[in-house]
Amino acid sequence: MDSALLEYTGKTAAVIGGGVVGASWAALFAAHGLQVVISDPDPDIERKAMAMIAAAIPSLVALGHAPFDPAARIRFERDNGYAVADAFIVQECGPERPGFKQAVWELIEASAPADALLCSSSSGLPASLQQTEMHDQTRLIIAHPFNPVHLMPLVELVPSPTTDPAVIARAVAFYDALGKVTRVIRKEIPGFVANRLQAAIFRECVSLVRNGVVTVEELDDIVTTSVGVRWATAGPFLSLHLGGDAGGLPESVERLGPLVERLWASLGTPRLDEQTKALILLQADDSYGAWSIADLTATRDAKEVAVINALAEPLVPVVR
Amino acid sequence: MDSALLEYTGKTAAVIGGGVVGASWAALFAAHGLQVVISDPDPDIERKAMAMIAAAIPSLVALGHAPFDPAARIRFERDNGYAVADAFIVQECGPERPGFKQAVWELIEASAPADALLCSSSSGLPASLQQTEMHDQTRLIIAHPFNPVHLMPLVELVPSPTTDPAVIARAVAFYDALGKVTRVIRKEIPGFVANRLQAAIFRECVSLVRNGVVTVEELDDIVTTSVGVRWATAGPFLSLHLGGDAGGLPESVERLGPLVERLWASLGTPRLDEQTKALILLQADDSYGAWSIADLTATRDAKEVAVINALAEPLVPVVR
Repeated sequence: MDSALLEYTGKTAAVIGGGVVGASWAALFAAHGLQVVISDPDPDIERKAMAMIAAAIPSLVALGHAPFDPAARIRFERDNGYAVADAFIVQECGPERPGFKQAVWELIEASAPADALLCSSSSGLPASLQQTEMHDQTRLIIAHPFNPVHLMPLVELVPSPTTDPAVIARAVAFYDALGKVTRVIRKEIPGFVANRLQAAIFRECVSLVRNGVVTVEELDDIVTTSVGVRWATAGPFLSLHLGGDAGGLPESVERLGPLVERLWASLGTPRLDEQTKALILLQADDSYGAWSIADLTATRDAKEVAVINALAEPLVPVVR
Repeated sequence: MDSALLEYTGKTAAVIGGGVVGASWAALFAAHGLQVVISDPDPDIERKAMAMIAAAIPSLVALGHAPFDPAARIRFERDNGYAVADAFIVQECGPERPGFKQAVWELIEASAPADALLCSSSSGLPASLQQTEMHDQTRLIIAHPFNPVHLMPLVELVPSPTTDPAVIARAVAFYDALGKVTRVIRKEIPGFVANRLQAAIFRECVSLVRNGVVTVEELDDIVTTSVGVRWATAGPFLSLHLGGDAGGLPESVERLGPLVERLWASLGTPRLDEQTKALILLQADDSYGAWSIADLTATRDAKEVAVINALAEPLVPVVR
């Protein structure tokens, strides 16, 4: 048990929905020594979720966690109400349908301890929409992770306008204790932040492929060898600050501002129509169709662990 | 001398313009054992460029290059014509003005060996625009690097419609021998590829800050802890292929397509007006104003070296 998590000793984290996101949260919770209960209506959920959790453990160990026996820390409970009955946190990872979210939070509110932290992993449905059937509309918060959940540092915390600031503070403390990097999004907005940034870059990716400027494979290679390395180490604003001469961001904004606005005006606005989708799928198959998704995923996870570990080590500044 | 560069032994690489980009190319060329001549009208160029080159050497050594004495490999020649007289490659890094580029290529064509490789580092002016005063319009190609040039793998090669395919092939071979990752862009387009992707994400970054969804610092932190790590290891298309269930890209495109199109429709279209620039600069100063650009740059470079080295090592696939 990590010392930062000592206050949760002996308590249970309930995961509602044992798909990719739920299983990955469960693996991370268990790696931190928590007891986990997964609730999912799929009769085959135990086999499927435990396979995903077993696959996650080597990456967690590579990140510095002690190996653990998932069966000793993770159990399954089909009934949502029973699952959350003694939970100190409920991590909801169910279907992205408003009706599901509203009904499940109504049930959870009635079944979970009054002081349980209530968090939705939703990437799209804001807390204000999910909490409509709850009596207490100060308790719910979005805790949106980034796939793979057990590896990626970011958790976007998105309160509704009525979420109690104390709930936000407790959510920050909990996910920080899990080693996550939490940032509280200041307004409810579709896609929150990270997925909006992904949508923005993906639109131009689709446009460039659609227009024959690059192929899918070339586009992916360009990203991993330039902006990917850049943004793993410094965000867009800091990168611009360091991007040119000694004048930093003020000079860059003045000098590059007109160029950037011209590029903005020239960016593509493609549709994901059938022809575009067919082109992308054909080129994607050319690029990595020869490898299984499992092998590609294992390679990606190993690279992500390598990058995360490389950036976690104390970096000796370059001597100049 | 790297074996891949043996054919260039004893030959000279000419760098036109000794600013940030030119000095960084010179450092990389010299690290590979090439002789380099830098041509720049600034009377103080030798002091400035050699300071930048000296600052680049520790990063180059950290990437595996042998330490070297820059004075033994790099000289300065004010006259562009003399500088290129025995060059096997001319790497132009001058001002981004059409008139400058056109005049300098007219001079270089008249002064350089007939078989010299003629490459512009321009990030914005296509070869077809730069070559208008050249007699032979088959020789010029854009070789656009990504800052910091001596660290970042990518070189975007952008031929004009009249560039000889043999020139493209020689450029690919040369930059590949330097350890760069080359991709040939299939159409001249403003900003080529990597800078268009940066513009696309930056537009949404500015919009989110302008709308008070996040601060500059929060935005930068969200990027480095999510999409940055993702895109350092897998491009946007491969990431989508591995982003969900076992169905891969075909399933993701069908399932997420409508959501992505809705997000596209909701993306911001901000202006970089005075109020927006002032807000960004104020928040940026709050974020990293306490550190010097030199220290921030050294830290960024050290992180980039760490990421590049982490991804260069043979990655043992995660055992599943």
